[in-house]
Amino acid sequence: MIRLSVLYPRSEGATFDHEYYVTNHIPMACRMWGLTEVEVDRGIRGPYVAAAHFRFASMEDLKKAMSSDASEISSDLVNYTTITPVMQISEFTG
Amino acid sequence: MIRLSVLYPRSEGATFDHEYYVTNHIPMACRMWGLTEVEVDRGIRGPYVAAAHFRFASMEDLKKAMSSDASEISSDLVNYTTITPVMQISEFTG
Repeated sequence: MIRLSVLYPRSEGATFDHEYYVTNHIPMACRMWGLTEVEVDRGIRGPYVAAAHFRFASMEDLKKAMSSDASEISSDLVNYTTITPVMQISEFTG
Repeated sequence: MIRLSVLYPRSEGATFDHEYYVTNHIPMACRMWGLTEVEVDRGIRGPYVAAAHFRFASMEDLKKAMSSDASEISSDLVNYTTITPVMQISEFTG
């Protein structure tokens, strides 16, 4: 299994609208990538104010999702945050 | 639900023994914290070479685990890595 973690670093003066993120942005990303498995974090302590962890069955599936037109997803960013997210791709068990 | 993410930053010259981490360290941490739900990442791309995500039912459960004697867990670090991990605590859905 492959995890794509999208991490939003906590930073001075930054804003993040968790409500919009969960109710609008994440469902849009899942719909465009054909995914049902995602977990959304609201940071309590540590370097990130928010994160989303998407599950892909394989690297091929992830690459296919990434190569599709992502302009709708990326242009939605300004609607919920001023933070530029960091991407982490990992293999995981379970 | 609360997620404790233990993140190991990729850094020049650092070592990380994934095999030892998965077969020895993670089971020890789960046993000491009374946990069964954990996911272990091997980083493919991005800022982290490895990560573990532990699930706790509540902040009270996490605090209880953290306040127990963790010397066995922390002294095991040298057996698998030269990296100092970063801790992230988050609330999550799912």
